[in-house]
Amino acid sequence: MKKSLFFSVLALPILSVFTFITPTTAYAAGVSQGLFTANNTWMLVATFLVFIMHLGFASLESGLTRAKNTTNILFKNTAIVAIGLLTYALCGFNLMYPGDFNGWIGFAGVGLSLPAGDAGLIGYADGAYTYYTDFIFQAMFAATAATIVSGAVAERVKLSSFLIFSAIFVAIIYPIVGSWKWGGGWLDAMGFYDFAGSTLVHGVGGWGALACVLILGPRLGKYVNGQVRPILGHSMPLATLGMFLLWLGWFGFNGGSVLSADPGLVSLVFVTTSLAAAAGILSSMVTSWMVQKKPDLSMILNGSLAGLVGITAGADTVTVMGAILIGLVAGVIVVFSVMFFDRVKIDDPVGALSVHLVCGIWGTLAVGIFSTNPDHKLWVQLVGVVAYGAVTFAAAFGLFFALKGIMGVRVTEQEEMEGLDMHEHGVAAYNGFQINNQ
Amino acid sequence: MKKSLFFSVLALPILSVFTFITPTTAYAAGVSQGLFTANNTWMLVATFLVFIMHLGFASLESGLTRAKNTTNILFKNTAIVAIGLLTYALCGFNLMYPGDFNGWIGFAGVGLSLPAGDAGLIGYADGAYTYYTDFIFQAMFAATAATIVSGAVAERVKLSSFLIFSAIFVAIIYPIVGSWKWGGGWLDAMGFYDFAGSTLVHGVGGWGALACVLILGPRLGKYVNGQVRPILGHSMPLATLGMFLLWLGWFGFNGGSVLSADPGLVSLVFVTTSLAAAAGILSSMVTSWMVQKKPDLSMILNGSLAGLVGITAGADTVTVMGAILIGLVAGVIVVFSVMFFDRVKIDDPVGALSVHLVCGIWGTLAVGIFSTNPDHKLWVQLVGVVAYGAVTFAAAFGLFFALKGIMGVRVTEQEEMEGLDMHEHGVAAYNGFQINNQ
Amino acid sequence: MKKSLFFSVLALPILSVFTFITPTTAYAAGVSQGLFTANNTWMLVATFLVFIMHLGFASLESGLTRAKNTTNILFKNTAIVAIGLLTYALCGFNLMYPGDFNGWIGFAGVGLSLPAGDAGLIGYADGAYTYYTDFIFQAMFAATAATIVSGAVAERVKLSSFLIFSAIFVAIIYPIVGSWKWGGGWLDAMGFYDFAGSTLVHGVGGWGALACVLILGPRLGKYVNGQVRPILGHSMPLATLGMFLLWLGWFGFNGGSVLSADPGLVSLVFVTTSLAAAAGILSSMVTSWMVQKKPDLSMILNGSLAGLVGITAGADTVTVMGAILIGLVAGVIVVFSVMFFDRVKIDDPVGALSVHLVCGIWGTLAVGIFSTNPDHKLWVQLVGVVAYGAVTFAAAFGLFFALKGIMGVRVTEQEEMEGLDMHEHGVAAYNGFQINNQ
Repeated sequence: MKKSLFFSVLALPILSVFTFITPTTAYAAGVSQGLFTANNTWMLVATFLVFIMHLGFASLESGLTRAKNTTNILFKNTAIVAIGLLTYALCGFNLMYPGDFNGWIGFAGVGLSLPAGDAGLIGYADGAYTYYTDFIFQAMFAATAATIVSGAVAERVKLSSFLIFSAIFVAIIYPIVGSWKWGGGWLDAMGFYDFAGSTLVHGVGGWGALACVLILGPRLGKYVNGQVRPILGHSMPLATLGMFLLWLGWFGFNGGSVLSADPGLVSLVFVTTSLAAAAGILSSMVTSWMVQKKPDLSMILNGSLAGLVGITAGADTVTVMGAILIGLVAGVIVVFSVMFFDRVKIDDPVGALSVHLVCGIWGTLAVGIFSTNPDHKLWVQLVGVVAYGAVTFAAAFGLFFALKGIMGVRVTEQEEMEGLDMHEHGVAAYNGFQINNQ
Repeated sequence: MKKSLFFSVLALPILSVFTFITPTTAYAAGVSQGLFTANNTWMLVATFLVFIMHLGFASLESGLTRAKNTTNILFKNTAIVAIGLLTYALCGFNLMYPGDFNGWIGFAGVGLSLPAGDAGLIGYADGAYTYYTDFIFQAMFAATAATIVSGAVAERVKLSSFLIFSAIFVAIIYPIVGSWKWGGGWLDAMGFYDFAGSTLVHGVGGWGALACVLILGPRLGKYVNGQVRPILGHSMPLATLGMFLLWLGWFGFNGGSVLSADPGLVSLVFVTTSLAAAAGILSSMVTSWMVQKKPDLSMILNGSLAGLVGITAGADTVTVMGAILIGLVAGVIVVFSVMFFDRVKIDDPVGALSVHLVCGIWGTLAVGIFSTNPDHKLWVQLVGVVAYGAVTFAAAFGLFFALKGIMGVRVTEQEEMEGLDMHEHGVAAYNGFQINNQ
Repeated sequence: MKKSLFFSVLALPILSVFTFITPTTAYAAGVSQGLFTANNTWMLVATFLVFIMHLGFASLESGLTRAKNTTNILFKNTAIVAIGLLTYALCGFNLMYPGDFNGWIGFAGVGLSLPAGDAGLIGYADGAYTYYTDFIFQAMFAATAATIVSGAVAERVKLSSFLIFSAIFVAIIYPIVGSWKWGGGWLDAMGFYDFAGSTLVHGVGGWGALACVLILGPRLGKYVNGQVRPILGHSMPLATLGMFLLWLGWFGFNGGSVLSADPGLVSLVFVTTSLAAAAGILSSMVTSWMVQKKPDLSMILNGSLAGLVGITAGADTVTVMGAILIGLVAGVIVVFSVMFFDRVKIDDPVGALSVHLVCGIWGTLAVGIFSTNPDHKLWVQLVGVVAYGAVTFAAAFGLFFALKGIMGVRVTEQEEMEGLDMHEHGVAAYNGFQINNQ
């Protein structure tokens, strides 16, 4: 009685797990139960790998910023995972994958909509994985876009405003523009290619970050009398942990984007992803060593991420050599991009714009240059980049600007100087240690 | 000669690995070699995920306590893994899964007992995994129960006493009560349901923790003149790392409890587990923000774990909406529970009682409310909760009380004030940093 | 046009990914698509597990050394991954697996050499995994050998010299000696057995470390007036994180060395690996507690790694009891070995020689004692140990000695005292914290 009340009132579907226990044998053509199970298992492994990227982002971002704002950053990054998963269940998934739609915007309804019986199971996705696997893998992706914004606005954004921005960004903006390609929309029809999201995830997050940073302005004391004053991160072990966990997660981010455990494609993706990251480290090391006259750890951490973002759009469609070249170029780009943003006084504490936006653009265009598939055309890739940039930037700017008017988006000067941890959360991240607030 | 001496003297069985290299083709009905391999691979992935929970516990516990006791906590948590695995091989596994037995207690013998030939391989567990997979997956579970106790008794327990307590707890108490349900004992026969251990693992650990904490008493300076003096954790990054790693591990803890790679069930479990954790974060954030007027990071970390513990008993048998509701309630419960234990002066440095015991009870009862399986009854779930509580608490209390009489269980006041690291281990956890011992 | 230029100029092969999309059905005998996919998926899981060992090494090594050198260590360990992967693609893989060769040295050519069509896919490795999987799994291994050296030379080695040494060590020395066994060379023909690299990886890394340490000499202030002055690690949480991540990675290191997802063998390897690590913790705890009169965290961390290194050579060919004994002995050895190296004034900041070299030798010889396969002979194991030791040590010594003459291998006294971070990198690892440079 009580149960039926719950289930009829709420929009999310009822699942009878018993249908799982006695599946029919109607697998897709050529798909055995063993193959279906192996495919689905890989997609779930990829899911937990993408999940761990959220810890990677939290670590990288807090490591590269000051100790007085660490609790705040950890709070944001934990909350975003929850917001991302829940809003994706509520509406994101059905906005991003609306089924038949006009190619620009569609909505398959509130909550999850498990196809009945075998259709959600062995009959789903050509027998590669189940409906639930599809949802949870995509849901883990979704929150990463919002997390990218988090890094760029760190150390000065107001917590409540950021959480509201993130919720709307991940629930509505990210999935709608995502549907243009991955949902089978107009850019997909045009031949645009973005394998795992150089643009759809990293570019979208990066454009959102740029919009927010322009509205927020730089941190106090970053640009003084026309000079750039570096603000050092408080823990390089934490930042390095973050980079390695992000790379680890990328095996699932790119490897899972094969959307099956296809041995040839997944193993190729592991190779291209790893070698692009390695190449990004190498070229960012050489570049920054030459330009800055010092081997710079934060640069090679970002160099590896630059290579990873760069290879993401074409990881399954370039050669091994192509992957290395994409990574080498990304590692050079990221060094100059970090310097460029500082020169134009756009303050990005962790280099998120350089890594995700700039290298996301590079990676998307690189498909047009290095792809072994002649259907991938540079001009179409450029159309995609511009379309995503224009719409995401405008939407994020409008949203954050509105929040600025309604409730403010930046903490007070006093709060910023004394640290967000004590003011917003009432507790420091490190207790017992002697810490200077810089 | 020397070899035969070894093998005849020792109780653990001899394995001829060569039987593995030429398996017969007698797979269980409907199980191909591909399916068997996919299933077994998933169970081993789940195994290493549960393993990483030990690092999660170590990180969470040390992050939420003071720097002067960190070496001690890390030592405990490292030693427990070893003790858990070795005692489980020695006797735990055969106490928990004794085969045919009276339903209350049984023992299949000292050491492992690999069924000969195919019976330990393709003939084991309906062709889902091998005997060795079964053992190592269950062994990884076992030590988690003892680790839960570790968090509650932190910063004042005597190392040697704790190690002895843990060894007996994990070698004897945990597997015997575990056999009542997972070994096919009397509670299983009664229809009690606990999918992955809201009660069998988290409740058991929580009852053990409660017994020890009552005997130990609170930390010095926690309750002074009837007032609660908060003792802050020394590193929120470490605590956050711990939460994320625990969540990561839970994909194996719950996902592996399907006991095969069944695509429908494992993917459902991934969804319910993730959304319950997300819901726990959301509701604990809202609740603690309203009650404490501050967004509290440690509360949302515990909120996520509360959701995870809550969903554990029914992760495969509730709807997506049910999972979200279970998580939402758990996140509210944990906030008030933490406040309650402080009000009654039960000092639990990391909130282990609230997360594992209280939300473990909630999760077990929630099966009776939200399960889609009409065989799951609330009163039976309550019987299980009471039975586990009574016996585990009594056994743990008796054991720890005996240890108190025999060798003492608490460090001296001086040792507690100066820190367990210098006194018990002779080395600080952080060297070179300026640290106040609070 | 532009593309064809790239591809004809460069040595790395062109891959047409489209061959993957329509595989033929010519699987190896008895291998279904499901089995092939499950096998390959496991090997890729093992690959990302080995990857995460690099984070484990970085964490362990930086945790066990001083804060003033942390950026330097993190930089080295990040750069080594890149160098290892890229040089392995360039020449390492084809030196280690040259195909038919004289048993001592062979080279299959610059760059990767993907067999055409199905031969690189379902026709590769008896249908267990693809060519790309083979490469990336082996490439992840390669860099670990160089990383072992990194720990021993920490806090005094010159960055540029170390990077050049590592590149040559991993690109040439490691794969050539590796080919003697894993490439099917003369030691393989002789019956030498090293399942996952107690000697081929850990021994090789350890001999390289010994050579470098002898040339470098001890850190300033370590041995003063004939006395050993302990230099404490700056962060035990970081060191503990490192140990757990290494253990986690070992599930892939050993589990992947089965070279398929064979359920019997992989699950056996999980059991032997875990129990050896647990036994190493137990025996090192008891030994160090008795000898040093204190429970020493860094000793049990090294004890677990000692057990892991020890079991690596025979993880698939010993009994459960054998694995426990190997781990118990390794845990005792490592304690006395650490004390021994200090007595003879060989300064190894993280215990890398004791863990990787000494226990690597022990593990290799242990195959001759505990293997259930009568073809494994102690004297052959000894021949292998001696051959690897002589050649690796000589080559590494020659190389590092040459570098010493050419460009120097050690930082200046001032740099060592003030810390490598400020001198080599111009930035501290921790900013905002009050730190003594000891």
